[in-house]
Amino acid sequence: MSYRGILIDLDGVLYQGGAAIPGACEAIAYLTKKKIPFRCISNTTRKCRQTICSQLSAMGFGIPPGDIFTPPCAAVTFMKGSGKDRFYLLTTGDVDRDFIGAGTNDSKKADVVIIGDAGDDASYANLNNAFRLLMDGAELIALEKDRYWKAPDGLSLSAGPFVSALEYATGKTAIVMGKPSKTFFELALTDLHLHPGDVAMIGDDLFTDVGGAQAAGMAGILVRTGKFREDTLRRSTIVPDAVIDSIADMYEIV
Amino acid sequence: MSYRGILIDLDGVLYQGGAAIPGACEAIAYLTKKKIPFRCISNTTRKCRQTICSQLSAMGFGIPPGDIFTPPCAAVTFMKGSGKDRFYLLTTGDVDRDFIGAGTNDSKKADVVIIGDAGDDASYANLNNAFRLLMDGAELIALEKDRYWKAPDGLSLSAGPFVSALEYATGKTAIVMGKPSKTFFELALTDLHLHPGDVAMIGDDLFTDVGGAQAAGMAGILVRTGKFREDTLRRSTIVPDAVIDSIADMYEIV
Repeated sequence: MSYRGILIDLDGVLYQGGAAIPGACEAIAYLTKKKIPFRCISNTTRKCRQTICSQLSAMGFGIPPGDIFTPPCAAVTFMKGSGKDRFYLLTTGDVDRDFIGAGTNDSKKADVVIIGDAGDDASYANLNNAFRLLMDGAELIALEKDRYWKAPDGLSLSAGPFVSALEYATGKTAIVMGKPSKTFFELALTDLHLHPGDVAMIGDDLFTDVGGAQAAGMAGILVRTGKFREDTLRRSTIVPDAVIDSIADMYEIV
Repeated sequence: MSYRGILIDLDGVLYQGGAAIPGACEAIAYLTKKKIPFRCISNTTRKCRQTICSQLSAMGFGIPPGDIFTPPCAAVTFMKGSGKDRFYLLTTGDVDRDFIGAGTNDSKKADVVIIGDAGDDASYANLNNAFRLLMDGAELIALEKDRYWKAPDGLSLSAGPFVSALEYATGKTAIVMGKPSKTFFELALTDLHLHPGDVAMIGDDLFTDVGGAQAAGMAGILVRTGKFREDTLRRSTIVPDAVIDSIADMYEIV
């Protein structure tokens, strides 16, 4: 065992097309049995970790919610670390559930404005409210800074444009969560109580997962499942610490 | 008469605190009598030119709406010049009246997206609609790119943040109207049917009015009314083509 802890990407590493990748459930069971701490780390900002946990459970994974780490979880970790517990949340779906216990969601007095994909809640009134809190000294956390996504009825604005709007209005720079943000990886390490040199990140994205983890001082391990392309690997200047066929071969390197 | 046409700033040049500056009405009457073409040029984006005209009339000015040139008028001039006549308008107040006759305001099919301060109409649904039109090839015109303004109930987001959001989402760069935009001055000249070398701009803002006009190839004349500060003039590298006490002394230089 060369690493004291593992970060594991979800889509393309543990599952693909709604089904577990062969051997993935066993790999997670192995880590659990051996008491090797890990976090399943994903850029998802539209589901709370409990929902992700239920979906993983339906695919056969035994992963408790506390072992799932997403941008909302990172925002909570950030608040805990900085002693801030009054926040204003602009998100959609059930993401607000991740903030239960993190403090008070207060639209009138907040130290932190947290913005994710908020859909119709990204109204003028709500954005203006966020703007005034920021002008009064609150920090801006972006759960993601994506430009847009493909909704069933067509391309739709993601959180990025609204983050950009608030940055332009206030002159502040958002702390952006999600891979490959170094801050995000560091908060995952804080959650794991481990130092970067002791941790490996396993992912299928050479840039976001492997490159991002290496830039944060961790080992980056690439799997040949999910979005892996041999060609992309050959052409890139990013050299993974290891390349394995799938998470089922994790035993070779951990 | 050294200039064939004149651009005149409104607030601080023709009036101040809701009343005409002494001699200003006479100066306008002189230009009209001498058939010297002029445009009253303002960055106002919350009132149509007819409303501005009525307000000027109440102060004693005889200025027809066609001699008032604001960012919405510039957008109309831009559309005419580029042969585009389907637009999607995100504005507030009665600004939409300036677009009557300019083509069709169509939220589903537009060549130009025009965004000003839209207040509550800057909703997710409307911004997403603008975004989709831009992704389908429409051009983006910003009537202004201000960060915020002081509303009666507190600081409030202006058009700039939403322009910035759409620029971030689409990768496009907005054509920004309003002084000191060179494009804006050029459209005013198009409206006057005159070349920059034949025109002088009279304003109280050394940077926006004088510097902006000079950068567009016109003469820049500074008045000592409105926001004029002797100190600002002394410290700046911008040298006006002339400095006059007020618009009442316009006869000295035109």
